[in-house]
Amino acid sequence: MQESRERILSALSEGPVTGPELADDLEISRAAVWKHIEELRDAGFEITSTGSGYEIESVPEFGGIAVEFGLEAPFEIEYHDSIGSTNARARGLATEGRENVVVLADEQTGGRGRLDREWSSPSGGLWLSILLRPTRPATHAPVYTLAAAVATARAVRETGVDARIKWPNDVLVEGRKLSGILTEMEGEADRISWLVVGIGINANVGTDRLPDREDVTSLQAEVGEVDRRNLTQTLITEFHELVHDEGEIVPAWRDLSATLDRRVRVETANGTVEGRAIDIEFPGSLVIETDGEETVVTVGDCTHLRASEGA
Amino acid sequence: MQESRERILSALSEGPVTGPELADDLEISRAAVWKHIEELRDAGFEITSTGSGYEIESVPEFGGIAVEFGLEAPFEIEYHDSIGSTNARARGLATEGRENVVVLADEQTGGRGRLDREWSSPSGGLWLSILLRPTRPATHAPVYTLAAAVATARAVRETGVDARIKWPNDVLVEGRKLSGILTEMEGEADRISWLVVGIGINANVGTDRLPDREDVTSLQAEVGEVDRRNLTQTLITEFHELVHDEGEIVPAWRDLSATLDRRVRVETANGTVEGRAIDIEFPGSLVIETDGEETVVTVGDCTHLRASEGA
Repeated sequence: MQESRERILSALSEGPVTGPELADDLEISRAAVWKHIEELRDAGFEITSTGSGYEIESVPEFGGIAVEFGLEAPFEIEYHDSIGSTNARARGLATEGRENVVVLADEQTGGRGRLDREWSSPSGGLWLSILLRPTRPATHAPVYTLAAAVATARAVRETGVDARIKWPNDVLVEGRKLSGILTEMEGEADRISWLVVGIGINANVGTDRLPDREDVTSLQAEVGEVDRRNLTQTLITEFHELVHDEGEIVPAWRDLSATLDRRVRVETANGTVEGRAIDIEFPGSLVIETDGEETVVTVGDCTHLRASEGA
Repeated sequence: MQESRERILSALSEGPVTGPELADDLEISRAAVWKHIEELRDAGFEITSTGSGYEIESVPEFGGIAVEFGLEAPFEIEYHDSIGSTNARARGLATEGRENVVVLADEQTGGRGRLDREWSSPSGGLWLSILLRPTRPATHAPVYTLAAAVATARAVRETGVDARIKWPNDVLVEGRKLSGILTEMEGEADRISWLVVGIGINANVGTDRLPDREDVTSLQAEVGEVDRRNLTQTLITEFHELVHDEGEIVPAWRDLSATLDRRVRVETANGTVEGRAIDIEFPGSLVIETDGEETVVTVGDCTHLRASEGA
């Protein structure tokens, strides 16, 4: 079902095509073709039917099928107008054995960030979770978080904002947070069983609808309303390409870093490290120089300090 | 129920005690006391009832309550005569929200090792999985595997074998494998949600019942039949103490290492590293010296080479 819908969308994307031609090409009944066309119309596609066949006149602004239409990465999109948490839903799909699914929502009612921190997800934002089953050791998991940050920064930069990444995975515009990422996984040391990368972007959301207005921003506040369908497709495609070329992720992260060459304070499970962030290492550790000594930090809360701050 | 059984066992371990005294001390009915005593007898405890009260005459050789009796670590033992996989059962308990449970079995019918490798678990062995919810970052997970290897090596050494650890977590006796460990986890970068450490020890099992007889051994083959109850208690207690003093784990591992100062070949996701194993670093990486350069390996298959082997 899923597959023939994708193939109908693919055939329609190349111009008008008749029902009988579609039925022949896809080896399904004409009634099945008609059912798919009606499903697409229900999803908001405007499809005309003339002598030369079915033709797509317009694609809906957002939604699962709209994002799948023209998506150049092999993911199924499961769309919800409203959901508790896209990560929780993706974890549920993982336990059902699924993979390569993106759970996408217009609104999350119970979104959360790292360490169960509150994460506000009003309607109009971009809230999605990507479910993968990479055949990589669990120690590589942090690089997927970096890849998500790079993909997010690249996608939002296409809307015109100067987005940069604060270690490890916050996307900032002029120091204000535009996007957050939460990666969850299950596996053994040698192997990731599943990985869920949750990405939240304050897209078409006024900052008055977000907490901590001083420290956050949104695309709407920075550049006005954006095309969320296009943004989602760019994000997923960038992410897909990055994770298939693992060696490119760290260099790409460096290029978009807001953290390197800055004074930082990182709170870790073993204490606080303060100094100058001098590099990032695979799979995602920050190298901090303090009094001529280098400390490598694998995980923690990072604060950018002003030049005058700190020891 | 669980708790009052533990308290009855604790009271009985200090000598004879009457039913009314037990009922008063535990604030339960005399009928409930009697029910617990019968449950213990069903589990194989010999309990006499005289004028001075109930008294434990003997403890069963193995089983859940037998291991709980006198266990100096806060774990509930869930015992199975036969189970598919103790790790699978512990993962199931994890999704139910449980913690600090040890799933213990006399036999596993579907045991597996790292990367789904076959792992034979005939009756008479020691097959257990420890479920924890440590409040540590996911990057620390490998140290729990080291702790399990140290606890296993220490426990089996008490039976008289010269057990040592091959990186990261095989316990060997004179180069032959006595025990294997498989750690599985779920979590986010900053936090482990749950961790299951599966430990298999070829205890009272003839090597004729194990595959690859040349490369494996058992306690039965090395020193004869062992007291599995005592072995299990020592193992769990050692593990519990180690994970509560994380800084001690790596030094303890070094002391029992069979790998350090040896020529090794490690197959990793990124290729093969061959050289001299010179150290282990927190949380469990092996440092290998090759032609004067040091390579740090976080995960892989390690082979000990003879001095004459390799480049």
